[in-house]
Amino acid sequence: MLHNPASKYRPFAPVNLRDRTWPDAQITHPPIWCSVDLRDGNQALIEPMDVERKIRMFEQLVKIGFKQIEVGFPSASQTEFDFMRKLIEEKRIPEDVTVQVLTQAREHLIQRTFEALEGVPRAIVHLYNATAPVMRRVVLNMSEDEIVDLARTHAQMFKDFAARYPQTQWQFEYSPEMYSDTELEFSTRVIDAVTEVWEASPEKKCIINLPTTVEHSSPNVFADMVEWTCRNIQRRDGVIVSVHPHNDRGTGTATAELALMAGADRLEGCLFGNGERTGNLDIVNVALNMYIQGVSPGLDFSNIDAIRATVEYCNQLPVHPRHPYVGDLVYTSFSGSHQDAIKKAFAARKEGDIWDMPYLPIDPKDLGRSYEAVIRVNSQSGKGGIAYLLEAEYGVQLPRRLQIEFSQVVQHEMDALGTEFAAADLWKIFEKEYCLFNDHGLQYAMQQEKGLVKLQGSLQWQGQTVPLQGSGNGAIDAFVQALSNGLGCTLRVQDYSEHAIGQGANAQAMAYVELRVNDDQTIYGVGTDANIVSASMHAILSGLQRSKLQVAETA
Amino acid sequence: MLHNPASKYRPFAPVNLRDRTWPDAQITHPPIWCSVDLRDGNQALIEPMDVERKIRMFEQLVKIGFKQIEVGFPSASQTEFDFMRKLIEEKRIPEDVTVQVLTQAREHLIQRTFEALEGVPRAIVHLYNATAPVMRRVVLNMSEDEIVDLARTHAQMFKDFAARYPQTQWQFEYSPEMYSDTELEFSTRVIDAVTEVWEASPEKKCIINLPTTVEHSSPNVFADMVEWTCRNIQRRDGVIVSVHPHNDRGTGTATAELALMAGADRLEGCLFGNGERTGNLDIVNVALNMYIQGVSPGLDFSNIDAIRATVEYCNQLPVHPRHPYVGDLVYTSFSGSHQDAIKKAFAARKEGDIWDMPYLPIDPKDLGRSYEAVIRVNSQSGKGGIAYLLEAEYGVQLPRRLQIEFSQVVQHEMDALGTEFAAADLWKIFEKEYCLFNDHGLQYAMQQEKGLVKLQGSLQWQGQTVPLQGSGNGAIDAFVQALSNGLGCTLRVQDYSEHAIGQGANAQAMAYVELRVNDDQTIYGVGTDANIVSASMHAILSGLQRSKLQVAETA
Repeated sequence: MLHNPASKYRPFAPVNLRDRTWPDAQITHPPIWCSVDLRDGNQALIEPMDVERKIRMFEQLVKIGFKQIEVGFPSASQTEFDFMRKLIEEKRIPEDVTVQVLTQAREHLIQRTFEALEGVPRAIVHLYNATAPVMRRVVLNMSEDEIVDLARTHAQMFKDFAARYPQTQWQFEYSPEMYSDTELEFSTRVIDAVTEVWEASPEKKCIINLPTTVEHSSPNVFADMVEWTCRNIQRRDGVIVSVHPHNDRGTGTATAELALMAGADRLEGCLFGNGERTGNLDIVNVALNMYIQGVSPGLDFSNIDAIRATVEYCNQLPVHPRHPYVGDLVYTSFSGSHQDAIKKAFAARKEGDIWDMPYLPIDPKDLGRSYEAVIRVNSQSGKGGIAYLLEAEYGVQLPRRLQIEFSQVVQHEMDALGTEFAAADLWKIFEKEYCLFNDHGLQYAMQQEKGLVKLQGSLQWQGQTVPLQGSGNGAIDAFVQALSNGLGCTLRVQDYSEHAIGQGANAQAMAYVELRVNDDQTIYGVGTDANIVSASMHAILSGLQRSKLQVAETA
Repeated sequence: MLHNPASKYRPFAPVNLRDRTWPDAQITHPPIWCSVDLRDGNQALIEPMDVERKIRMFEQLVKIGFKQIEVGFPSASQTEFDFMRKLIEEKRIPEDVTVQVLTQAREHLIQRTFEALEGVPRAIVHLYNATAPVMRRVVLNMSEDEIVDLARTHAQMFKDFAARYPQTQWQFEYSPEMYSDTELEFSTRVIDAVTEVWEASPEKKCIINLPTTVEHSSPNVFADMVEWTCRNIQRRDGVIVSVHPHNDRGTGTATAELALMAGADRLEGCLFGNGERTGNLDIVNVALNMYIQGVSPGLDFSNIDAIRATVEYCNQLPVHPRHPYVGDLVYTSFSGSHQDAIKKAFAARKEGDIWDMPYLPIDPKDLGRSYEAVIRVNSQSGKGGIAYLLEAEYGVQLPRRLQIEFSQVVQHEMDALGTEFAAADLWKIFEKEYCLFNDHGLQYAMQQEKGLVKLQGSLQWQGQTVPLQGSGNGAIDAFVQALSNGLGCTLRVQDYSEHAIGQGANAQAMAYVELRVNDDQTIYGVGTDANIVSASMHAILSGLQRSKLQVAETA
């Protein structure tokens, strides 16, 4: 593997197209979409779909909004034939949907294909034959002329069989097999032969489908090929140029996009990229890439999880957790700085704003996914995610600096456990760290006279009863003085905030104070109570307890 | 979803670069590879790697041949810090490998980062700060000038800290965070500020890393950006231009490739595309795409399944069955016509030939995968695959027309069962269909005189003992005549072939005959025996039995 593979493998040939225009093109409207889930997708399954699964897939495709659906290869097996008949006889094909079937260029297969379609209102019949050099040489042992004749002969058969079923509205499609591996001049010659037989015209267009049967070259080379073909074929205005990318090089999506920029009108692919080997083009991916550019794809993925469930059921193959737009992890941010940015951007975003959210290229809500899934917390993630989760799940609004302090606590726990934390785990750590439900037996009474608050009371501190007596310009002030006196320390409240959680009679106050203890320690405390005064006192005690102030230091 | 999303989403802005040169470029040598599995990959895991997993991943990366490995973010957590120390103190970093660490642009984090690296022989220290408009506005609330100052100040800190550790050979890397979302003029300004501070020069290059932190645009737009940046930054000859693609649009691999064509020198990514959300660039994919173009990537994936096992263990995430080059299904052909073409191309291929195999872009053997896995058989697959499997597993060489006949038998069984068939299943069907081990109690003696073979014997046929007597110019001829006489039918052998399975004393003959029975049925028979004459007789009986010739028709 480390050695030079140049003697075994051949680089792909570039296309001489210096005046290419596609790199300046932009995609501004969707192509004609054709799903091949029930044909190319199905034939690549370990367990091909049974009839019940096929029906479910078909109905799912219709619901998404596909108007062209390749439903099978009826001449290839009885199952496929029967399924086609079932769709027709049970009138399962909606009026705005056209079914498509594939056939090899052999007479008895073409005949069987038309028989399978008898009585269908509209259909696309899709012919293919091998054109690539390796296929001509190794598989068919035919010359170029013989291949052209073969294509022409079978194209004519299409016309002849179609004429026998005049009640159906026929459209013809032709694929030069392994277009991506065929010399451009030769594929053009075959295409021209076929479109001539079919008398392709703007009034009666046929589909010429250009497959990357095996993806061999980078997407720009394929785009050059498509632009070259669009320029050089005859009857371009009578042709719908379709592409059918595979994904062997992992660049199927880019290939589709660059091909559209290069002039293709139509895309064939599968949901979430099922298909032979590395799969067909993932139509969902391309459609949603358009969507986030402001182009409506005309396909509905607003409940993408339900679609995924159907596809996984039908294909009996999983969707990967990192699959674009649909994987379990794709709306999950693990990085602290990402979480922080997302939190701020959500806060700054107003309804109707352009979507400009760091680290979230699409609003998960548009696909029926939720913001709650956006943030998980692990040993790599920081304060942003923690604060977000606690606010989302428990309604607490942690002050900025408390977030920083608490994130270190969480990080310490996480480093020790090495696992991911859910909101409930964080809440447990939060409760414990800030001694949330320890009131230290606090009892107090307050009087207010001429702007002066006087406080008297007691609390339990490290096994001792500490009397409280103090005064100040407010309740907190008086309590801090009483505590300082009682415990013999210097206390200062540097920051204070408080908010309600819940509403009405069940509302609880949540108080946060940043304490300066003995002028050498700055620490947060958190308290909660139905009474806002008690909540803030608890918060001060929480901070004090965390400061590890020793009872030995009491006066 | 069906509605126009144009009011919510913004199309990506094209780059004004009409004179772009990258579409004519070709990749002829590998980039500098940098694995970020232990940093960007690890921070996106549900369960981040523990130390044992990190060591395994590190050693795997070294073994593959990575010379630059980002091992963590030591200022972000104690675990990361400790792992860096462990690598250094236990001298686990090979002499030709440079470790890399990431840090935010904050003084105490930079200090901690250099502390983590104390005593390392070589290191790349990687600085980043936000430059994208949304980050400036929403997250940092800083002006452009302030961002440039921030970058300059922290770049200077790098120099200052590095000077404190002169025993280490330092290289600096800088990432404008969300380069892909930053105005090109502004990212250039920040880059120039940083390279000026670092005094980047051909003798002391720094790395400028351009991340598609979130993939927002099609790969051609990113390529335009990279070419623009390469042309417009100062000190280009003192800069290694690195790219760090993510995969939100499913086009990370294409983005990397087009960026290399546009001038990038270095790629950051992860094995099999692990990473935040949809993942980082899949380095294996890009490297093997080069490999099949005849360019040695300098990375060794000759045992890709072992690498996959390590990655799955460390990341605790699966690799998808359709993942390019490595998924379970990517060397499996389900389509009959594909199987047929592969079979013929394998037969035609000679050792040392250029790899020109339909449907197999890479020789699976180069990755430690095997041809045996290439073909499975299901209800969609045809004769090619069946014949291939039976030959590979059982050594039988089915004649072409027998393949066609038997494929219909298999298809029928498959349509009934709807499941995938392994070689053993096919063999069972084959044995049963051709009555392989039914010898019909055949006994015979033969004499040869002057070119004439005379045969006498008997067999059991549908419960009756049938005497055999006949002659001909050979054994088969005499047997056919004897059978025709004995059963009162017309028999003709239209095709005959026979071959050995195994060698020496254990060798068995396998015979295939195409019989014409009563001039109205053409059918194959198969027979096997240690004796080639008996094998061919069994084959004739096999065909005759399959023809459903009734005992009632016997004379």
